[in-house]
Amino acid sequence: MDCLFCKIVKNEIPSAKIFENERVAAFFDINPLTKGHCLVVPKDHYEDVFSIPLVDLKAVITDAQKLAETLRGSLQAEGVNLVNASGAAAEQSVFHFHLHIVPRYLNDGLEMNQWWQSKVKPADPENLKKMAEEISKAIKN
Amino acid sequence: MDCLFCKIVKNEIPSAKIFENERVAAFFDINPLTKGHCLVVPKDHYEDVFSIPLVDLKAVITDAQKLAETLRGSLQAEGVNLVNASGAAAEQSVFHFHLHIVPRYLNDGLEMNQWWQSKVKPADPENLKKMAEEISKAIKN
Repeated sequence: MDCLFCKIVKNEIPSAKIFENERVAAFFDINPLTKGHCLVVPKDHYEDVFSIPLVDLKAVITDAQKLAETLRGSLQAEGVNLVNASGAAAEQSVFHFHLHIVPRYLNDGLEMNQWWQSKVKPADPENLKKMAEEISKAIKN
Repeated sequence: MDCLFCKIVKNEIPSAKIFENERVAAFFDINPLTKGHCLVVPKDHYEDVFSIPLVDLKAVITDAQKLAETLRGSLQAEGVNLVNASGAAAEQSVFHFHLHIVPRYLNDGLEMNQWWQSKVKPADPENLKKMAEEISKAIKN
């Protein structure tokens, strides 16, 4: 297995690890969007949100919340973005599940919303209701 | 309380609701980034990842995983992005915690990574290690 994040978890390559516990590890991204940008990962290798067991996913989100709170206090961040990419089509780069925590600061220049708003297209409410019915049935099955 | 998502949860305004259970509701975003773009929210009003109780956060992520899997199967999505904005500095728009599930399709034109890569700045590994030590201590306290 030639997984970058597995190697970081096992300390086979250097990283700026913030913490680890039984199931989860967190370390700083070497190409940060902002100061304090870090990744929370399961220590075991699961590719994405589709394959990570729920117990590990819950452990990741629990530690992500704790870490987000700590980053806000320690770095005087005023907010955070949490981001996950699952699948090549979702522009996932490393295929070991990871949740980005991106601390945000007033006027940090990230302008995520500028990108976001340039991509959205208003939907027809009636079409959305039909799709909601279909998806709702698919969940129950 | 004049919260848009509280009104959606309580059916006081129309929405394309996909499901709801004791703690969580999910509905389609009326300004979708892609087909099937939806929001998963706690039914109780919590502003952001800093204030949502862990039990609700775990319920949200549990249902988000289930919904992501269903969207992938029903809409032939090939991946998903999960996104949360917490705080005005993080460009949060509606101040009721919500996790975006954005189904992704090959060549869907979203090009999140193009925006992302235009914003990152390589960090000094030694500085990251120092910061990791500081944050690590802050978590333990």
